[in-house]
Amino acid sequence: MFLLRVNMIDRTYKVEELPETYKYLAGRAMTSTLVADEVPPLCHPLGPHNKIIFSPGIVTGTAAPTSARVSVGAKSPLTGGIKESNAGTSWGSDLAHLQIRALVIEEQPKDKGKYWGLYLSWDNSTQKPKLDFFPADEYTQKPLAEVFSQLYQRFGNRISISGCGISGEKAYSNAGVVFNDEDKRSTRYAGRGGLGSVLASKGVKLILTDRTGAPDVAIVDKALFNEGQKKLSQALQTHAITKPKGALNSYGTAVLINILNEAGGLPTHNFSRGQFEGAPKIAGEAIFEGIKQRKGKEIFNHACSPGCIIQCSNTWYKEDGSEHVSCIEYESDWALGADCGIDNLDDIGELVRLCNEYGLDTIETGNTIAIAMEAGVIPFGDGKGAITLVHEIGKGTPTGRILGSGTETTGRVYGVTRVPTVKGQAMPAYEPRAVKGIGITYATTPMGADHTAGYTICPEILGVSGKVDPLSNEGKTALSRNFQVSTGFIDSSGHCLFIAFAILDIASGFQGVIDECNAVFGTNWTADDIMTYGANVLKKEHAFNEAAGIGKAADRLPDFMKYEPLPPHNQIFDIPDDALDSVIGGL
Amino acid sequence: MFLLRVNMIDRTYKVEELPETYKYLAGRAMTSTLVADEVPPLCHPLGPHNKIIFSPGIVTGTAAPTSARVSVGAKSPLTGGIKESNAGTSWGSDLAHLQIRALVIEEQPKDKGKYWGLYLSWDNSTQKPKLDFFPADEYTQKPLAEVFSQLYQRFGNRISISGCGISGEKAYSNAGVVFNDEDKRSTRYAGRGGLGSVLASKGVKLILTDRTGAPDVAIVDKALFNEGQKKLSQALQTHAITKPKGALNSYGTAVLINILNEAGGLPTHNFSRGQFEGAPKIAGEAIFEGIKQRKGKEIFNHACSPGCIIQCSNTWYKEDGSEHVSCIEYESDWALGADCGIDNLDDIGELVRLCNEYGLDTIETGNTIAIAMEAGVIPFGDGKGAITLVHEIGKGTPTGRILGSGTETTGRVYGVTRVPTVKGQAMPAYEPRAVKGIGITYATTPMGADHTAGYTICPEILGVSGKVDPLSNEGKTALSRNFQVSTGFIDSSGHCLFIAFAILDIASGFQGVIDECNAVFGTNWTADDIMTYGANVLKKEHAFNEAAGIGKAADRLPDFMKYEPLPPHNQIFDIPDDALDSVIGGL
Repeated sequence: MFLLRVNMIDRTYKVEELPETYKYLAGRAMTSTLVADEVPPLCHPLGPHNKIIFSPGIVTGTAAPTSARVSVGAKSPLTGGIKESNAGTSWGSDLAHLQIRALVIEEQPKDKGKYWGLYLSWDNSTQKPKLDFFPADEYTQKPLAEVFSQLYQRFGNRISISGCGISGEKAYSNAGVVFNDEDKRSTRYAGRGGLGSVLASKGVKLILTDRTGAPDVAIVDKALFNEGQKKLSQALQTHAITKPKGALNSYGTAVLINILNEAGGLPTHNFSRGQFEGAPKIAGEAIFEGIKQRKGKEIFNHACSPGCIIQCSNTWYKEDGSEHVSCIEYESDWALGADCGIDNLDDIGELVRLCNEYGLDTIETGNTIAIAMEAGVIPFGDGKGAITLVHEIGKGTPTGRILGSGTETTGRVYGVTRVPTVKGQAMPAYEPRAVKGIGITYATTPMGADHTAGYTICPEILGVSGKVDPLSNEGKTALSRNFQVSTGFIDSSGHCLFIAFAILDIASGFQGVIDECNAVFGTNWTADDIMTYGANVLKKEHAFNEAAGIGKAADRLPDFMKYEPLPPHNQIFDIPDDALDSVIGGL
Repeated sequence: MFLLRVNMIDRTYKVEELPETYKYLAGRAMTSTLVADEVPPLCHPLGPHNKIIFSPGIVTGTAAPTSARVSVGAKSPLTGGIKESNAGTSWGSDLAHLQIRALVIEEQPKDKGKYWGLYLSWDNSTQKPKLDFFPADEYTQKPLAEVFSQLYQRFGNRISISGCGISGEKAYSNAGVVFNDEDKRSTRYAGRGGLGSVLASKGVKLILTDRTGAPDVAIVDKALFNEGQKKLSQALQTHAITKPKGALNSYGTAVLINILNEAGGLPTHNFSRGQFEGAPKIAGEAIFEGIKQRKGKEIFNHACSPGCIIQCSNTWYKEDGSEHVSCIEYESDWALGADCGIDNLDDIGELVRLCNEYGLDTIETGNTIAIAMEAGVIPFGDGKGAITLVHEIGKGTPTGRILGSGTETTGRVYGVTRVPTVKGQAMPAYEPRAVKGIGITYATTPMGADHTAGYTICPEILGVSGKVDPLSNEGKTALSRNFQVSTGFIDSSGHCLFIAFAILDIASGFQGVIDECNAVFGTNWTADDIMTYGANVLKKEHAFNEAAGIGKAADRLPDFMKYEPLPPHNQIFDIPDDALDSVIGGL
């Protein structure tokens, strides 16, 4: 496997053998290690000294189920700290097949505003990946669906596509990195933390992969791999949440809307209440029914990336049955819907579509709109007004620039004091005053408020790996720490986090994941080893943040959640500071 | 002396005896101690748990020369850290006469958007200060000159006035606290750090003082006081910089324009060069000549506050000889002129006037406009465009809201990476790559980039207290530390920082300051004691910042100054991090 370094100051690249010390690093472990080792913690995120790194997971590109994830890492313009965000896409598999364990993009062109595309392919003569640069200015200032369509026309269907949207070109702190889905849509995102702007700051608009002629991902022990793959597949196909026609496959991730609303943990009106009266109208069940009505039949969900057997990605349709957008995820549905008081799925669908077109993170975007609503720019519940605001982001009007800068900046510019962010990143769809464990994760993950970093929702809400009271503080620091540590590994393995539902409840599935990784590397890792692996990822990330000036005082929830009781449970977030500190202290 | 606490949740107040432990605290020492002792470091600066504190200096209100300073302190919405900013004004003397060593404003009304005035006066029956509240909504959304005029009409000439402008009402991070000058103008500012918004967040628009019937400031040893006062007066009246018809009295603080330009340390075009071709057109000498031409005679400067014998405040006139604005300070002249490439004194005068009208800090405002220029919103040098932008701030348009949020936020919103801030506060008029000592002060003062916090310009540029090479790193950490420590005391003494020019060169003047303070308190402080006093102020401030998440990593200059050489000397800022850390470590 190789490490491919691109220097954008003069558009050169080098293909390096993977250093021995990086041999077992992949996905998040790779991106976070490279950021920690090579990026000056106090550099400007959009300046020449930041680097943006792409790395497929350990088993990405193999036949392991639900494992086409690719991690993107850099110093984040949103948080100022280390960032890893990942997506499931054939692009990730391609990178693995091209034998690239890490793509590192460094420096930036002297002539700002000029963009390039990178075309990664396999050089049969050298048996190494190679890179061609092409001018990409013609793909700028356009909606991403149009860009993707032009690229497939020009380069053919063999390519996969990554890049940034208009939001990245405008240097917004809320600009994601886009990837193609299985139907060539520009809809899969490493969305969080503004990484699209880091890519654009390098003068890179697009990264195309073409795996024609490339070898398979090497597996040291194929028999063990097959065994592991089988165990994991069986677990996924058995568990109620992940099985075919199960919760995710039927209703998508938005199946959580009613569940969280019932629990009083669905934030609405900019985190001022934990229950949204419009929840049933935007829930996964309503999406399923809406699609059925508009298409005249029950339609189950599809895979976002190759080899996924959970298949939780949906498509929303217009009244006339034509496609509107893919996909209305729980987080998008909540951020652009419930949190803004919007209960119309067509408005939410349009908002998601616009985020995909402009290259915006839906979670951050929904939160910025909710702040604008609290500031009185438009009223809560105004779906059409919200659509106009997202268009302003795309156009780069002054209002659009404010919103494109993310939730914390929007709060500052409008003088709003109730701003639901940690380390500058907006909170996802779980109210920490009603679900205490996830609040600990928001506070203490190096990523800024991020549910995926330690998804305690499993036991707190879903009864996966046991059931604990979401309102209780009891045992929650250890719970969050354990989830954060195991996630440090899962995000490195190449698997989608959603395998967690199955492998937490079905021990053989968990062993299957370990088997797969051992098979690829020829290692003998135990469950303890992978927890050590995950903890090491977190330690590197925290050390980088510390050096970047993001220390313990940043491991806190915003002030207002400590004194403003949240209906209906009327709870505040009351995990003591020393308990929060013990999460990382206990690594 | 008393501590007067106002609770704005129910508009009540208490007059407390000054606690024994606070007995020798005044000015900055008092505001910083109260912030450190009482404000939760992680509270939202505009939320209910911040406090805003006013404190006159040790000798404020006495006959000590140039000593009518009042400190304002809070957690800053601009920096997120502790903030002290001070101004010279009769309001400060009044507070001292009213026997109020600290005015502490706490909490905030439940009904946002409603404003109150506080009327502080002397209650002869109780021999204590008293406070009356009056509705102040009628004074909102108006330029401050109009507000001041209405207040003097209503309450008579006996009052002094403090408050915030439209910028505070709009919760801008760049909103100063205004005070009256000696001619009842709304022109003296505790400008830095957004304290005007903290005041407004308390529902307080105005604080009027009426010292009718109030006693004098108590002096324990009057003979010693007279002696000290005489020594200091003689020093001020002798030194070339501070004497009558000397540099400051003739040309105002803008006498520095040509001096810094000559040294290659006058930042222009958003800190991209150290010399501005238009400097002679906006220098103090040009102001003096311009006034002479328009008024038909030489006019020397006036005192900004009672008892000042330096008298460096100027008035700028229109072509027809009518008053345009008071005062064009060096910092304002540079920020709104040189840094924006603007070389027209009438445009600069108008920009200063607008800042005074809207309640904005001129340093921060100039920097935000320069960032907008770098982003291409208007071209460098466009004085009329800059005037339009400041009007947008006043109106609260989206562009205005961006600029009102300060330099760092403006940089983020426009995706500008060359942002000259430390701890979120914009740099003043000395380029740290050309004057290394002041760069150390910018980096390491708890206040964010602030020249007044440790004015090493004295020896580096002016040859006051010796002469050192501004481009050399040699001995500069100790130099900055010493200046920061002594400033911690001067900012507490009630004297204007400008006494430093004289007392650094004339030992008897320095002793005079110590005598005055000992006379007021009945103490026997030595020069060592006042350095300990200053160091203690700094230690408290740094401890607060540390708890607020602003640690060593924030004691750094922005990235671009470390790799972008500054013409004409083509130097970078190359003070090593451990040297920066030694400034505070050595306290």
